[in-house]
Amino acid sequence: MSTLSRRDALQMAAAGAALAATVASPAGAAAPSAPTGNSFTAVREPTPLPFKPDALKGLSEKLIKSHWENNYVGAVKALNVVRGKLAQAMADPDLPAYLYGGLKREQLMRSGSVVYHDLYFGNLGGNGQADAATRTQLSKHFGTFDAWESEFRRVGNALAGGTGWVVLAWNPALKTLENNWLLDHTNGVTGSTPILVMDLYEHAFHMDYGSAAAKYIDAFMANVNWETVAARLKTVAA
Amino acid sequence: MSTLSRRDALQMAAAGAALAATVASPAGAAAPSAPTGNSFTAVREPTPLPFKPDALKGLSEKLIKSHWENNYVGAVKALNVVRGKLAQAMADPDLPAYLYGGLKREQLMRSGSVVYHDLYFGNLGGNGQADAATRTQLSKHFGTFDAWESEFRRVGNALAGGTGWVVLAWNPALKTLENNWLLDHTNGVTGSTPILVMDLYEHAFHMDYGSAAAKYIDAFMANVNWETVAARLKTVAA
Amino acid sequence: MSTLSRRDALQMAAAGAALAATVASPAGAAAPSAPTGNSFTAVREPTPLPFKPDALKGLSEKLIKSHWENNYVGAVKALNVVRGKLAQAMADPDLPAYLYGGLKREQLMRSGSVVYHDLYFGNLGGNGQADAATRTQLSKHFGTFDAWESEFRRVGNALAGGTGWVVLAWNPALKTLENNWLLDHTNGVTGSTPILVMDLYEHAFHMDYGSAAAKYIDAFMANVNWETVAARLKTVAA
Amino acid sequence: MSTLSRRDALQMAAAGAALAATVASPAGAAAPSAPTGNSFTAVREPTPLPFKPDALKGLSEKLIKSHWENNYVGAVKALNVVRGKLAQAMADPDLPAYLYGGLKREQLMRSGSVVYHDLYFGNLGGNGQADAATRTQLSKHFGTFDAWESEFRRVGNALAGGTGWVVLAWNPALKTLENNWLLDHTNGVTGSTPILVMDLYEHAFHMDYGSAAAKYIDAFMANVNWETVAARLKTVAA
Repeated sequence: MSTLSRRDALQMAAAGAALAATVASPAGAAAPSAPTGNSFTAVREPTPLPFKPDALKGLSEKLIKSHWENNYVGAVKALNVVRGKLAQAMADPDLPAYLYGGLKREQLMRSGSVVYHDLYFGNLGGNGQADAATRTQLSKHFGTFDAWESEFRRVGNALAGGTGWVVLAWNPALKTLENNWLLDHTNGVTGSTPILVMDLYEHAFHMDYGSAAAKYIDAFMANVNWETVAARLKTVAA
Repeated sequence: MSTLSRRDALQMAAAGAALAATVASPAGAAAPSAPTGNSFTAVREPTPLPFKPDALKGLSEKLIKSHWENNYVGAVKALNVVRGKLAQAMADPDLPAYLYGGLKREQLMRSGSVVYHDLYFGNLGGNGQADAATRTQLSKHFGTFDAWESEFRRVGNALAGGTGWVVLAWNPALKTLENNWLLDHTNGVTGSTPILVMDLYEHAFHMDYGSAAAKYIDAFMANVNWETVAARLKTVAA
Repeated sequence: MSTLSRRDALQMAAAGAALAATVASPAGAAAPSAPTGNSFTAVREPTPLPFKPDALKGLSEKLIKSHWENNYVGAVKALNVVRGKLAQAMADPDLPAYLYGGLKREQLMRSGSVVYHDLYFGNLGGNGQADAATRTQLSKHFGTFDAWESEFRRVGNALAGGTGWVVLAWNPALKTLENNWLLDHTNGVTGSTPILVMDLYEHAFHMDYGSAAAKYIDAFMANVNWETVAARLKTVAA
Repeated sequence: MSTLSRRDALQMAAAGAALAATVASPAGAAAPSAPTGNSFTAVREPTPLPFKPDALKGLSEKLIKSHWENNYVGAVKALNVVRGKLAQAMADPDLPAYLYGGLKREQLMRSGSVVYHDLYFGNLGGNGQADAATRTQLSKHFGTFDAWESEFRRVGNALAGGTGWVVLAWNPALKTLENNWLLDHTNGVTGSTPILVMDLYEHAFHMDYGSAAAKYIDAFMANVNWETVAARLKTVAA
């Protein structure tokens, strides 16, 4: 699977150059320079899949490779491009604020995609069997482990036929473990720590299951890496 | 200012009773019971304002009281009601998943409002002067402190005339401090730690400034409690 | 392909009964009755496919059947259920307004899906060749026919990897033919007349093309029924 | 009240020039030219208020002037700027599609604001008394006129504390008159004909009523121009 190619790098450089032209100052005037901190300049590389793409039960190698290569790596590349655009746009004091906002929305969309996908692939590759300590902890917050799983699955089914993420997260402000319904990459709970992440964009399952999202959810659950989940749970005060 | 009133409590109880009727089982049939963990049963109380409502420069007591009493406390009450609705809905196995999703969206909307408002009021009441260490830290991520402030304000102006939040946050997955453009309470960056939060819903300023959002942003910046900001920054690896 | 089944009808009736229980009046009190006009009671039947599901070039019978049976018919059924829920909810004067709003959002989502899908299937099944009069009319508004097609395709590619609709529509308020970027079923331009509708939800193509949305767009364009498009254009003053 | 000022025109021209620089072709290469049809070049002027700004009962002159001058005229100006940006962006074949999509989203947002505001101001300035024929027509679709008004107001209250539009519209695809809940300017029902439009953005009332949206709705209803509503109804087959 690919990482950023030379062609991508050239495209990003070209985008920068074109934008620089936009903000070329008229003779004698001093134009603001583009911001230089890493909030504008950081370049992200894709995280490799933590398991072999043919290793999952009920999720095909073709699907997993397409998901990782196209949707995830595409988001990483787009995020890098958007950062460059933001830096150049900040150097243009005349750009209407609402157009800057449009770029920031793209940043939110792409960074959400990068972060959720990292977590998603990161919590797959296991045997789907939760350990006793994790079951106990989820019971504490949801009544029973089955009550947790039942709601987690129902939120997944609620997103079927569209997009979104189901995220079990620790919300320190509310002191609850919660299953979040998130409609797209821009949705989220700032301040929450993600524990288990399930992708409900149709690109996560349609190739294998068509519109049968419930069967995909079965497959997802059978491949959860509960060691990763347990490790994430240990970092919070749930 | 009020907390949950007896009338509110009665309304919540009544809502629960009405919903219980919805799921009353036909004679002889065993209906699932509602989940009982704190993800469904937690009741939240509003956090008092951390400053006197007449203490801010350029933001009127009337505005601040209205914002806290109506928008914030209203969100707290709504979140409590929604939790009860979710518990009852989970006990109804025949409810279509998309209707459950509608309730989860309300939960996301209300909990976002509660959490962002807590952070917002929590970082007001100061003198607007950032300390040297904080300025240095922001410079590291944005090039200069002014570059940070310039983008923070621009994102605020981008949301003028509508809704949303500007949130300076530490994104541990991307290892950057970032100013997030968030369109409404459902938007967020799961996993990020919020450092400084500015409300751009029109109820945060219209009563005092009409549509002049830029003047409200000036007033907000003059009242930032940088001690709170510095304390939040200390908890992250930025 | 199916229409509303007896089981669906029973489910709808059951949903109504359960909701009726919700609003049962306390002894002696007169509860409001549910609204009875067709805005609340209309029941919609799915429109049959206007072409054989195996008749399209480059879009498989399996995909088209899944799209029509699951996504479209599912939306029709959901819309009927939501209408019943709205009628019952209107009869409950104590329901918080924001929960009513949640149901109205579902109505918007489902009715958008029904209407856009009707238009989408309605403008497929042709040979992809626009007639001279239509080409001239699009040239008038976009400069050239190719300029129109180029933007229409680009908007499609912009939605790749997620959801949405590309809609060529006549906007009488602005007196322009426009290609609209619509993120999901809730997006739209009230008052505009749709002329050509392309689905970019991943369920419209992922089974056949994976993430290669551009190839799907090629296939869509090759199957456009321009006679339908021309007929729609004749109804407007473009 | 202002129309587009000379300064606005200069800004638009400057924006065009800056963008032209972006797409300047390297020596010898032929760059695509910007589209020239009116979908890209149309310039919109604001519609004057159809009543004196001090003529409404319970809605202050200050509020109405601010609403028209800032929110509405601002949207008209922004739409014109966005059109120019789209034309230039279409001339750049290397622009990533998702960034083009970001501009199209801005177009949808601004054109929605323009069209809804035109309709909103257009249906104010009356005495709030619906004629018998209109009452009969609404009764046909909602059970009774009061049932219509009750839902229209409830949808308004559902949007309180945020943004959105309540739109009574004729949906020819579903053959119903419906009250639509629309969360922001991007929401809508393509193909529907708007009959009565109520603004629930907080800038429509906060200056006069703070968070008391229900009182604003009373004021709105008292000023509806039902002659306009009746005229719009006559154009549809409701």
